[in-house]
Amino acid sequence: MQKEFLSGFAACCGQLSGLTPLIHCITNPVAMNFNANVLLAVGASPLMSSRRDESLELASLSSALYVNIGCPDETLVAAAKESVAAFSELGKPWVLDPVGAGAVRLRRDIAIELMSVCPPAVVRGNPSEIMALNGDGFGAKGVDSQAYSDAALDSARSLATRFKCVVAVSGAVDYITDGSVTLTIGNGSPVMQTVSGVGCSESALCAAFAAVDSNPLRAAWCGVALMGLAGERAAAVSSGPGSFQMALLDELASFNPAEYSGKIITGLI
Amino acid sequence: MQKEFLSGFAACCGQLSGLTPLIHCITNPVAMNFNANVLLAVGASPLMSSRRDESLELASLSSALYVNIGCPDETLVAAAKESVAAFSELGKPWVLDPVGAGAVRLRRDIAIELMSVCPPAVVRGNPSEIMALNGDGFGAKGVDSQAYSDAALDSARSLATRFKCVVAVSGAVDYITDGSVTLTIGNGSPVMQTVSGVGCSESALCAAFAAVDSNPLRAAWCGVALMGLAGERAAAVSSGPGSFQMALLDELASFNPAEYSGKIITGLI
Amino acid sequence: MQKEFLSGFAACCGQLSGLTPLIHCITNPVAMNFNANVLLAVGASPLMSSRRDESLELASLSSALYVNIGCPDETLVAAAKESVAAFSELGKPWVLDPVGAGAVRLRRDIAIELMSVCPPAVVRGNPSEIMALNGDGFGAKGVDSQAYSDAALDSARSLATRFKCVVAVSGAVDYITDGSVTLTIGNGSPVMQTVSGVGCSESALCAAFAAVDSNPLRAAWCGVALMGLAGERAAAVSSGPGSFQMALLDELASFNPAEYSGKIITGLI
Repeated sequence: MQKEFLSGFAACCGQLSGLTPLIHCITNPVAMNFNANVLLAVGASPLMSSRRDESLELASLSSALYVNIGCPDETLVAAAKESVAAFSELGKPWVLDPVGAGAVRLRRDIAIELMSVCPPAVVRGNPSEIMALNGDGFGAKGVDSQAYSDAALDSARSLATRFKCVVAVSGAVDYITDGSVTLTIGNGSPVMQTVSGVGCSESALCAAFAAVDSNPLRAAWCGVALMGLAGERAAAVSSGPGSFQMALLDELASFNPAEYSGKIITGLI
Repeated sequence: MQKEFLSGFAACCGQLSGLTPLIHCITNPVAMNFNANVLLAVGASPLMSSRRDESLELASLSSALYVNIGCPDETLVAAAKESVAAFSELGKPWVLDPVGAGAVRLRRDIAIELMSVCPPAVVRGNPSEIMALNGDGFGAKGVDSQAYSDAALDSARSLATRFKCVVAVSGAVDYITDGSVTLTIGNGSPVMQTVSGVGCSESALCAAFAAVDSNPLRAAWCGVALMGLAGERAAAVSSGPGSFQMALLDELASFNPAEYSGKIITGLI
Repeated sequence: MQKEFLSGFAACCGQLSGLTPLIHCITNPVAMNFNANVLLAVGASPLMSSRRDESLELASLSSALYVNIGCPDETLVAAAKESVAAFSELGKPWVLDPVGAGAVRLRRDIAIELMSVCPPAVVRGNPSEIMALNGDGFGAKGVDSQAYSDAALDSARSLATRFKCVVAVSGAVDYITDGSVTLTIGNGSPVMQTVSGVGCSESALCAAFAAVDSNPLRAAWCGVALMGLAGERAAAVSSGPGSFQMALLDELASFNPAEYSGKIITGLI
């Protein structure tokens, strides 16, 4: 399956930049600017709104919904619930980034509540977040994770099976699973952990691919692979988190999908 | 008239950096940081607030109000209405960026509602936004515009006449009109469309010039010309949206107004 | 005393990066991304939340609280009050950045109200903000300060004595005082005033040091010294506010604490 995905990667990227799908983003103000610029860089069209009374209209206009609970104000959560319902009603995908669910009970509860309205196409998080969502305890001190991604693999599979969705876990090795099939991505750089909004933007990329690809496993794999490889490249030409942010956007706006296909490190486990 | 504006450009820039006007900004969290840094770069002093109970005090302290509805929470809109009334009462100008009004009904309605409290000195938007504000349909998929600026020229003139305000439309050619006189700006770069907050910041620059210039047509022309030329220069020395953001701020903080006067491509139609 | 602080600087930095303390940040959306990246760069772990119902859990998880009133929505202020009480109850430090208190009455009142719940370990502001908090009038036009830091020195000492806290005043020379002892820092660069969020991030650094150091005077001195010297270095390799932002993050993520100890310009007055 990973060979199919590799050979289809360039076509998925082409669909994304060709269709410029509108992505309704309900996200936190920490990562909002970076999320928007990452989506613009790959050809998607982000629209930010946390108003309940825009939910229906935006669901009809947009191709996918991206929800991030990194700063979960009551109004944002209320808007997210209505938008999840509205997109799901129309058969359009949504992607969840459960920021902080590995450390804070309220955030885990918010994430589960949203997933219970209607399962997302993809949930992408760090190991602690995925473990907490599956009821396997709180492993994180904050929004970062102290756990290794392989420690969260069983939790990811179980969560994917339970919600019939795709789960992506970030780490030195990234895992993408639908509960039965599990793929790995080995690209990336440690500097990606030191810049706020990179993980959030990886989730936003999963939403962008889900907007143009009806196979959520492949969409999540494309998002994780693209961010991993672009991050690796940006890290190689930057000298710290500040220049990395800039280099990552430049890389995402100019990468060659065909060349990338040959550099993605992926496997099936 | 464009010759007068060209010869007065350096003086307007000098007034801006000399007076360091306080600009009350009610804007969206996506562009907030970039808006603030653009205003600081040209010598203005931004103050962000979306609290209704600060409206009166900020209107008395500030020289202009900048309102952007890119993420129009109820509290932001309520604060904007009170601030528009408070600034207008004191005869101080306000500038509107109707983000998303070309795609989302609620945003068009919010923009019209704000303009109906008291007309802005300037409203600056993309073609779809200006067409929608004039009641000429929804041409946009999201916050970007799919229409060409010349398609919005009649809408812009009609809107300007109706509200007795200046309307600026961004595009390959930018139009600035008060309904009877229409000026063009030919500077800019396509990369400006791929970075979140650049259009918003162009509107913020219009507010900064309006704060020190009682002629709103010239203020809008200065803001559009400055962003167009600085954007063109920044694009020439950057290699993507990330480095462009950085280069644009550096350029705006160090440009030579007299030299710029000779590079602005402008006309009267 | 400044010699003790100088010789202990590298150890304090080592504790910070070694302990990676969780810092609960209640801050404004203008500076939120930059605040988060500054904290990550020095090894701290930022968590942003303005929800009242997360206050207790975050107080128990975190090592320090950072409150910034740069965009003081009602919900943010309500959350800040509960968090100040919750951290103080647990004997954990909090740091206040009273953005805008030097210009806007409501902000001064909010700052005083928060300080009256329980005094912060450190309050860091510009001269006008510190003067206003001490009841010495409004000297600022906006969130920037027009006053020189030495004009605020008496106000700073008086405020520190009154609230039994440390007060830091930024300027060409920075002052850090507990009311009886006053230290100076002479590092920095004028470009730091032209970038939104740099002052806010200096306060965030004070919170990060306070999280790992029970001496608030030394914690504030470390935060001010580190930002001053890193800012000076970043300014030397950048060509404007855009490249400065990037260079500052790179510098903060890679500075050598032992080398820095020899470059900090400090005195006792």
